[in-house]
Amino acid sequence: MKDGVFYGRGINELKDECPELYDLVESMSDVLYTGKSLDYKTQKLIAIAIEASKLNENGTRKQMVSSMDELGATKEEIMDVLRVVLLTCGVPAFNNGVRILNSI
Amino acid sequence: MKDGVFYGRGINELKDECPELYDLVESMSDVLYTGKSLDYKTQKLIAIAIEASKLNENGTRKQMVSSMDELGATKEEIMDVLRVVLLTCGVPAFNNGVRILNSI
Amino acid sequence: MKDGVFYGRGINELKDECPELYDLVESMSDVLYTGKSLDYKTQKLIAIAIEASKLNENGTRKQMVSSMDELGATKEEIMDVLRVVLLTCGVPAFNNGVRILNSI
Amino acid sequence: MKDGVFYGRGINELKDECPELYDLVESMSDVLYTGKSLDYKTQKLIAIAIEASKLNENGTRKQMVSSMDELGATKEEIMDVLRVVLLTCGVPAFNNGVRILNSI
Amino acid sequence: MKDGVFYGRGINELKDECPELYDLVESMSDVLYTGKSLDYKTQKLIAIAIEASKLNENGTRKQMVSSMDELGATKEEIMDVLRVVLLTCGVPAFNNGVRILNSI
Amino acid sequence: MKDGVFYGRGINELKDECPELYDLVESMSDVLYTGKSLDYKTQKLIAIAIEASKLNENGTRKQMVSSMDELGATKEEIMDVLRVVLLTCGVPAFNNGVRILNSI
Repeated sequence: MKDGVFYGRGINELKDECPELYDLVESMSDVLYTGKSLDYKTQKLIAIAIEASKLNENGTRKQMVSSMDELGATKEEIMDVLRVVLLTCGVPAFNNGVRILNSI
Repeated sequence: MKDGVFYGRGINELKDECPELYDLVESMSDVLYTGKSLDYKTQKLIAIAIEASKLNENGTRKQMVSSMDELGATKEEIMDVLRVVLLTCGVPAFNNGVRILNSI
Repeated sequence: MKDGVFYGRGINELKDECPELYDLVESMSDVLYTGKSLDYKTQKLIAIAIEASKLNENGTRKQMVSSMDELGATKEEIMDVLRVVLLTCGVPAFNNGVRILNSI
Repeated sequence: MKDGVFYGRGINELKDECPELYDLVESMSDVLYTGKSLDYKTQKLIAIAIEASKLNENGTRKQMVSSMDELGATKEEIMDVLRVVLLTCGVPAFNNGVRILNSI
Repeated sequence: MKDGVFYGRGINELKDECPELYDLVESMSDVLYTGKSLDYKTQKLIAIAIEASKLNENGTRKQMVSSMDELGATKEEIMDVLRVVLLTCGVPAFNNGVRILNSI
Repeated sequence: MKDGVFYGRGINELKDECPELYDLVESMSDVLYTGKSLDYKTQKLIAIAIEASKLNENGTRKQMVSSMDELGATKEEIMDVLRVVLLTCGVPAFNNGVRILNSI
C-alpha cells in the first residue's frame, strides 16, 4: 500500500478482524494514487488540500508528514497548497493548516 | 486577476457597488495563486479537488473550465485529481466530479 | 411559526401526514428565533450566513428572501453578512452568496 | 455491482476509458454493501442519511430511488431516516430531504 | 429524554439557565427517535453514520457508546455502518470512525 | 488587524517567512470586518455561528473569546447565536457550541 503512513491506529487494526476491508483500502490506495498524468507527489499535495479544507486535524497532519517523509515534499510546497485553501476555504481552515504544518 | 473565468455572475457585479470587495478578491487571487514552489496549474488542480470535495457544482465546473482553457489542463489530469477525491471523499463526490467533467 | 417563508415544498407537505413533525419544526422555530438578547432580524442574518457557508442554494435564497420581506433586511446588510462568509469560508461560498443575492 | 442505479451519468461512462476505476468502484460497492450484521437495506438507509446530511441533491435522490426500487424501502422508513437528519443536521437538511422524497 | 448519554457537558448544563432550550432538545430527541417504521437502534446507527461522516469526534464517540450501552449494538454492526461511511465519505472519515470504535 | 486574538499559533508565525500572506490576511480582516450597515460586533457573532456550524473547535473558541474580550459580547448573546446553530445545524453542533461556551 502506497499510503502506509496514513493508516495509523484505525485501518492497521483491521488486518486481522476484517481482512477484506484492509485489502479494499489497500486496493483503493494503489489504484487511486497511480495517476495517468499526475505523479504521486502531486496527488499527495491534493490530498493535503482536501484534508485541510475539511478541518480534519489527524488527516491533515498524516498527509503532510507522509508527503514530506516519503516523497520529499517541502514546507514551501505545502504552504503553496495552503494558499489555495485560504482562497477557497477562508482564514480558519488556512490558520489550522499553517498551525499543523508549523508543528511538524 | 488571474482567475478571471472563475468569477461569473457573482463577483463581477461587485465592481461598481463594492469596489473594495472586488479589489480584495483580486488581491487574494493574485497573491494566493503566486506560489513559491508550485506552479499556477498545479494550484488550479488543487482548487478543482477542493471544490469537488465540497460538492460545489458551480465552483467545480468553473475551476475545471478555467484550468483547461487558460492553462491547458487535460481531462486525464483532472481525472487524476478526481482519483484523490474518490479516495478521500468517497463515491458520491467522485461521481459528481466525473459527471461535471464529462459534460464540459 | 415565525419562519413561514422558509418552509416551502418540504415541510409544509408534512402537515397532514406527519403532524408531530410539523409541530416540532414549528416549536423549534418559535423557541429558537426568540432570543433573550439578539433580535429576530439579527438571528435571521446569522441563518443566512450559515446557509451560505454550507453552499445550500435553496436555504440561502429562502433565508435572504424572508429576511428582506418579513424583516426589512437590506441588500447592504446581507452584503455585510457575506463579507464574513468570504473571510471564514473563502471565495466560492462568497461568490455563490453574491450571485444568489443579486438574483433576488 | 449492487448499487447499479446509483451510478448514472458519472461512473457508467468510465467503463471504457478508465476500466480500472470502474472496477474499483464496483469492488467498493460489493465489499462495503456486504455487511456481516446489517442487511443491505439498512445500509442503503444509512447511505440516504449521509447524502441528505451533505445536502447532496443528486446523491440523496439516487439513494432514495434505488432503496425503494431495488429493496422495497417505504416512504415511511425514509421519513424515519430523515427524522435523524433533522435531529443531527437541523431544519434545512431535513427540509431538502423531505422535498426530494415528496418529488419521487 | 431517550438520548441521555449523548448530552454530556454541553446540554446538561442548560437545565437551569435555559430550561426552554433543554426542554426543546428533549422534545426533539423524543419525537425524532420515535420512528413509525424503523426501531430506535436502527435510528441510532444512522446517527453514528452521520456523525462519523462529519468527522465529529465527540459526537461519533457518544453515539457509538450510547448505542452499545443502551441498545446493545455490537462492534460488528457499527463496522457495517462504517462500511457505508467508507463508500460515501472516503478513507479519512472511515479511518477516524474505526479508530474511535477501537478505542471504546 | 481587527481580529488580533483570532490568529494564534498559525498566522502569527507567518510574519517573517511569508509577509505577503500575513499582509493579505490582515487586509482581509480589515476590509471584511468593516461593514457598511452591520457593526463589527454583529459580524463577529456571525463568525461564531459559522465556526460553530463547521464544528471547528479552535475557531469557535477563538471567535467566542475575542468577541467577549474585545467587543463585550455576553454569554446570553452567544447563546442566541447558538440557538440559530441548533435550528440550522442540529443538536451535535449546538452541543459542541454550548460546551465550548461553558468552558470559557
